Amino acid sequence: MDPKRFSPKIINDPVYGFVTIQHSLIYQLLEHPSFQRLRHIKQLGLSYLVYPGANHTRFHHALGAMHLMQESIRTLKMKGVDIAPEEEVAVLAAILLHDIGHGPFSHALEHVLIEGVSHEEISLTVMQTINAELNGALQLAISIFTNKYEKPFLHQLVSSQLDMDRLDYLTRDSFFTGVAEGVVSYDRIINMLTVVDGQLMVEEKGVNSIEKFLISRRLMYWQVYLHKTVLAAEQLLIKVLERAKFLFNAGEEIFLTHSLKEIFGQTLNFHDKSLSKELTALYLRLDDAEMMTHFKYWQESSDLTLSNLSKGLFNRQLPKTIIQNEPFDPREIEALQAACAKSLGLSMADAAYFVYSDKISNYAYRLDKGQIKIKMKNGEVKDVLELLTHLDRSVFTELSTKYYICYPKQLAWPTK
Amino acid sequence: MDPKRFSPKIINDPVYGFVTIQHSLIYQLLEHPSFQRLRHIKQLGLSYLVYPGANHTRFHHALGAMHLMQESIRTLKMKGVDIAPEEEVAVLAAILLHDIGHGPFSHALEHVLIEGVSHEEISLTVMQTINAELNGALQLAISIFTNKYEKPFLHQLVSSQLDMDRLDYLTRDSFFTGVAEGVVSYDRIINMLTVVDGQLMVEEKGVNSIEKFLISRRLMYWQVYLHKTVLAAEQLLIKVLERAKFLFNAGEEIFLTHSLKEIFGQTLNFHDKSLSKELTALYLRLDDAEMMTHFKYWQESSDLTLSNLSKGLFNRQLPKTIIQNEPFDPREIEALQAACAKSLGLSMADAAYFVYSDKISNYAYRLDKGQIKIKMKNGEVKDVLELLTHLDRSVFTELSTKYYICYPKQLAWPTK
Amino acid sequence: MDPKRFSPKIINDPVYGFVTIQHSLIYQLLEHPSFQRLRHIKQLGLSYLVYPGANHTRFHHALGAMHLMQESIRTLKMKGVDIAPEEEVAVLAAILLHDIGHGPFSHALEHVLIEGVSHEEISLTVMQTINAELNGALQLAISIFTNKYEKPFLHQLVSSQLDMDRLDYLTRDSFFTGVAEGVVSYDRIINMLTVVDGQLMVEEKGVNSIEKFLISRRLMYWQVYLHKTVLAAEQLLIKVLERAKFLFNAGEEIFLTHSLKEIFGQTLNFHDKSLSKELTALYLRLDDAEMMTHFKYWQESSDLTLSNLSKGLFNRQLPKTIIQNEPFDPREIEALQAACAKSLGLSMADAAYFVYSDKISNYAYRLDKGQIKIKMKNGEVKDVLELLTHLDRSVFTELSTKYYICYPKQLAWPTK
Amino acid sequence: MDPKRFSPKIINDPVYGFVTIQHSLIYQLLEHPSFQRLRHIKQLGLSYLVYPGANHTRFHHALGAMHLMQESIRTLKMKGVDIAPEEEVAVLAAILLHDIGHGPFSHALEHVLIEGVSHEEISLTVMQTINAELNGALQLAISIFTNKYEKPFLHQLVSSQLDMDRLDYLTRDSFFTGVAEGVVSYDRIINMLTVVDGQLMVEEKGVNSIEKFLISRRLMYWQVYLHKTVLAAEQLLIKVLERAKFLFNAGEEIFLTHSLKEIFGQTLNFHDKSLSKELTALYLRLDDAEMMTHFKYWQESSDLTLSNLSKGLFNRQLPKTIIQNEPFDPREIEALQAACAKSLGLSMADAAYFVYSDKISNYAYRLDKGQIKIKMKNGEVKDVLELLTHLDRSVFTELSTKYYICYPKQLAWPTK
Repeated sequence: MDPKRFSPKIINDPVYGFVTIQHSLIYQLLEHPSFQRLRHIKQLGLSYLVYPGANHTRFHHALGAMHLMQESIRTLKMKGVDIAPEEEVAVLAAILLHDIGHGPFSHALEHVLIEGVSHEEISLTVMQTINAELNGALQLAISIFTNKYEKPFLHQLVSSQLDMDRLDYLTRDSFFTGVAEGVVSYDRIINMLTVVDGQLMVEEKGVNSIEKFLISRRLMYWQVYLHKTVLAAEQLLIKVLERAKFLFNAGEEIFLTHSLKEIFGQTLNFHDKSLSKELTALYLRLDDAEMMTHFKYWQESSDLTLSNLSKGLFNRQLPKTIIQNEPFDPREIEALQAACAKSLGLSMADAAYFVYSDKISNYAYRLDKGQIKIKMKNGEVKDVLELLTHLDRSVFTELSTKYYICYPKQLAWPTK
Repeated sequence: MDPKRFSPKIINDPVYGFVTIQHSLIYQLLEHPSFQRLRHIKQLGLSYLVYPGANHTRFHHALGAMHLMQESIRTLKMKGVDIAPEEEVAVLAAILLHDIGHGPFSHALEHVLIEGVSHEEISLTVMQTINAELNGALQLAISIFTNKYEKPFLHQLVSSQLDMDRLDYLTRDSFFTGVAEGVVSYDRIINMLTVVDGQLMVEEKGVNSIEKFLISRRLMYWQVYLHKTVLAAEQLLIKVLERAKFLFNAGEEIFLTHSLKEIFGQTLNFHDKSLSKELTALYLRLDDAEMMTHFKYWQESSDLTLSNLSKGLFNRQLPKTIIQNEPFDPREIEALQAACAKSLGLSMADAAYFVYSDKISNYAYRLDKGQIKIKMKNGEVKDVLELLTHLDRSVFTELSTKYYICYPKQLAWPTK
Repeated sequence: MDPKRFSPKIINDPVYGFVTIQHSLIYQLLEHPSFQRLRHIKQLGLSYLVYPGANHTRFHHALGAMHLMQESIRTLKMKGVDIAPEEEVAVLAAILLHDIGHGPFSHALEHVLIEGVSHEEISLTVMQTINAELNGALQLAISIFTNKYEKPFLHQLVSSQLDMDRLDYLTRDSFFTGVAEGVVSYDRIINMLTVVDGQLMVEEKGVNSIEKFLISRRLMYWQVYLHKTVLAAEQLLIKVLERAKFLFNAGEEIFLTHSLKEIFGQTLNFHDKSLSKELTALYLRLDDAEMMTHFKYWQESSDLTLSNLSKGLFNRQLPKTIIQNEPFDPREIEALQAACAKSLGLSMADAAYFVYSDKISNYAYRLDKGQIKIKMKNGEVKDVLELLTHLDRSVFTELSTKYYICYPKQLAWPTK
Repeated sequence: MDPKRFSPKIINDPVYGFVTIQHSLIYQLLEHPSFQRLRHIKQLGLSYLVYPGANHTRFHHALGAMHLMQESIRTLKMKGVDIAPEEEVAVLAAILLHDIGHGPFSHALEHVLIEGVSHEEISLTVMQTINAELNGALQLAISIFTNKYEKPFLHQLVSSQLDMDRLDYLTRDSFFTGVAEGVVSYDRIINMLTVVDGQLMVEEKGVNSIEKFLISRRLMYWQVYLHKTVLAAEQLLIKVLERAKFLFNAGEEIFLTHSLKEIFGQTLNFHDKSLSKELTALYLRLDDAEMMTHFKYWQESSDLTLSNLSKGLFNRQLPKTIIQNEPFDPREIEALQAACAKSLGLSMADAAYFVYSDKISNYAYRLDKGQIKIKMKNGEVKDVLELLTHLDRSVFTELSTKYYICYPKQLAWPTK
């Protein structure tokens, strides 16, 4: 055996048994502080308040997605798809780093702490920084990540409607929440992958598994990602932060670490290029633990609104939440706010921190994104939507919208 | 159906499928801020640095142990053991609260932040406080927890060498780390439980499962609880805190939240009764998140020792660790400290933060604690140790001790 | 403990961990030769030719369904539903024996060996026989099985669109085939069961799990129960038996055990009451092993048709099978039969043993059977179909029909 | 993609998820009637009488062992071990066919139906026959199987104390029986395999997993393979056959298929070369189903001994069995036989079919077979026995022997 050969590392993963790190570049990325940081960002934000097992992290998810990528590459090579060693390492790096731009509580705070930027854009920024540190070792990975590489299937494995990201998060979230509804036949799907004319496809006999995947994703949305109580907690999280920022800007004294104070103090806009580097650094210093420590200390704030909201969040005393298919009547919302103001001794403006209504939407399958293509036995290529035998096409492709309202548990619903 | 009946709550648990809360008192305890706090204490401290799935919490463990208690009570009642409804609720409450006194990073920091007290004693203090709040609703639970109740098997289910605590933590830790070696037949063991003359026993045909349980526990010790890298991380954690406390007492300016500053400022001794209430409160305000936020900020301390140690801990740049069966030669330790002092430009005193040696020990089975009793088919009662057919008794009952040394990776081992 | 108390038996079940037998009547039934016989009847007939793990038996399924019944009864009692001890034992007996009338290869041969009778009717006959042996101990169980008992929910637990039979077979078939698509949240569904006005219902928050259950059942139909290759094997099984019976009646000498000779020799009609007892006995002596031994010996029959068909079945050389949504053109079928006759040197009549076409249908949900009822939070009762938010109602309630054709692999599809 | 490339086949396996067939030779072997025959041989003989899930077959086991071999080869290649494509296919073929010589009920009848030959020798005979059919395609596989090939590690992967056979059967038997005690970290062990000087080794950090593997194997022996009730059933099986053979040779008329009649009629000795081909063919025609059909029909034999024994076996009315560490007193055995003769109205000679005593032995680890070698971090090679830190060496290497007696349940133990 070659003594210079990179000795593979093995990591226990309760979901897949073992994940192996087979390339020194991947190991280098894994050890990078920017990647280690993901250990402190929960994959599912506040979902652990409903599913106590859901403490898994972005770190673990990224590792799992990298593992599935390895399996996919192995399958495709076995089927004769041409993938060079450097392409293999690059696509592994790309999936490993795809979420590296996530901030605290992942999606929940994505647009609260900073504006005008998605986590994908921040991921790209971080990848570029590391690329510079590593003298261009991530060049090809970045090219794949940004879909500029000449083999589109590599990008599609990283980001499409049937990518390793989705396969891992459905599998992993289902595993750690214990929600069997989300179980996906990831190994069967991977075994069914193929490439035609550079495009990622699924063999015809894998259609059932794809249907199951689409259903699982949809069920996970309503049962986990948009679960009523999770939604209530995430909205409360946002209200807490809005209140704290308001107080800070009004000159009130509240517990604030250096990072959060800086972020509150700037009107940060990512596209103001002069700021973005510093901003990225500040934002990426934050993590779930630091935010949670704020909520704990804010329980004792002299501002009753901040203190009440923080106590609710920290001790899981969440607002009552109703979800329905139609918007709520603005007069009902206002009546509840008035009742809340009266009950808690607040102004109407402050009552809006406790009583609020909005909508949530999701697609199970997006027609505007690249479609999942099926390679038929006879050689034809079809979109999976043409082949659904068990499910109704419209159910999957229409935007599904629901409306919610949150209000303190002690309030009664207004009678007319 | 009785409208006043408590409507059982169902909680998803990836380990057992579902956990049901069947009694309103148990639900009340679950909702208590002191219990919700356990959501922020990881069951396995820093083990997630080796096993990325090991982010499960004391909250989850307590819930799981309560579930196993429910199953055990059900089995025993099915076998005709007399257990009154109020005894059932009490023993469920006792197991639910058995870990409520755990501080940040569970065992790792138990004797660092405060002295002269075990987490069991603090658990009892918290139970007494809640008991007062609930007008004595925990009286019987406390009596069982402290082994003063007339049916010893109830205490043994909570705390003995075969209690619900151990059954759950082995099962749960094995599940979340993905270490198959720790898998225990918890359901078979529970099905084999019985009671003779008020003592908890295992039926003869369950002996194999008990042997497996003893082996699993031992393997988990060496493979997870005392894993070399976990050990290195936990020792580093202690060094970081020792340094920070030293700097604080020397009047240096470092990042400290209110709670930690108070704790550092007092020479807290739990048995100084006038202090203990306040101390307990302060200590129990701390959690993993707050500690981790300190480590993050301390990376930028002007004290190089604190900053170096914190960077190592936060970014998982852990010291090299060697474990062996004999103590290390003090001259080798000193030589390494000298090399470290030279390499990092430190005093010999400060080098001891980076190079240190100690021992670790564990019993797989303790002869001084109550034994696991087996009820033979012919009615006799034996200690499980008499019945081991596969394993050597001495291996299990002798104290197993190993010695370790930690030092910076860049240092070479001293040549003589 | 009461020394006369029945000592519970524990049986390892890889699906549920452990199954406990808690009542002496249930244990007596388990030991009965008529129940032990089910060890020799595979749950999924010839599906093991596609899914090599699918060797599980009717015995195991009946045991599993009994286990789920125990869990359901426990849940319902916990929710305050009134169920007397003798009702509990009776409903356990009823589910344990629900499949006791199954003959070899379960459904595949149900209407080939004997006519005019379903396996449910034979189950009832066997239950009545055992009831007589046991001096009426099964009276209440039979009353529940035949839906004559005053508490309809007990029958519904045994036989309805959401009964323990279905919950177990989906779970078990999914487990042993390894088809993740069929996984059902049986424990969540059971936890969601309730009873209103004597009718079995599901609580509103269980609707997602019911949708998942309906989808799983449908996917299992197309992926396992009606899998193309399984279908081909089962049709071949029928052809082999038809040929053997034809040869026997034509006076040819073929290998036949006593039981099968008797069955072939009679024009058995179950409703000819004078015959039915003897017939039942003869039919129930048969099992998968005895049938398989025939196929093995028939490979050497001097009749080429029987020998060819048997070789195909025994060595898994199955016909080519095409499934489509429209009927096959009779002229194509005839052309294939002609080609087959020519290729194998057979008459056109005999070629029909090798080339045949028919249809298969199934409902995911039957509107003509009792509906799955949902108890809404506001007290209303709705049919689950009104509440489907993810799925299209019509997909589930319409009869889904497909057409297939089987023919020897060596034949080419006729060109026009 | 190359259109001539063999298109991999995917087979669902509940144990490993999926097994892929990647080579056309392996697929050809899989389709061979001699291999398909293994579908009718249960892996664990009569163990299903204790563990109702244990209906898995030699077919499934061979497939699983082949899958683990694929994983091992992949790991070794990743670590730089030189394995040519033709060696890879050959070692896969060797493991796939390693059990092809098993007769009905695997080990239980191995030395009853034919004498002077092991199943390994018959496997080799069958491999040679297929090799001739396939024009030498199995030459290299046979060379590996018989340990004549120049790379010993390939043979060791097929047959040694840590081979794919053992890894699969422990994993699979544990899975289907539901006995958690047998769970083995097969994936971790495979990841730890390496090759030094042509010998298969385990890396030092895999020692814990090997210890666990040794313990699991031992626990599986006592809990499954030599389970008291399984033992009773297997001894009964042998007695039934001995009685039937005795009756046949005495000219009595009993139900016998052609194959069994031929085997009973010859004094078959495998090493009488003129007979062995015919014998092998006859023997290999038998399977579990054909044997079981005999037991069913023999229940009605006019010979009471055969009929009684067969009823016991077929309906699971098994003899009482006692296991102890010392031999039974011959006078007690004789007293029981006398009581049995009296109770059933039999001669003393016939009573020996119902009352019998013998011993069972097993090694957890054999010193006379090739040892499991460990490659230490410092380059040394050690035997695993030198490294056991948790277990006692003697427990594993000594022959463990127990004595049993079986007798009819209605008999009382003789008083002195």
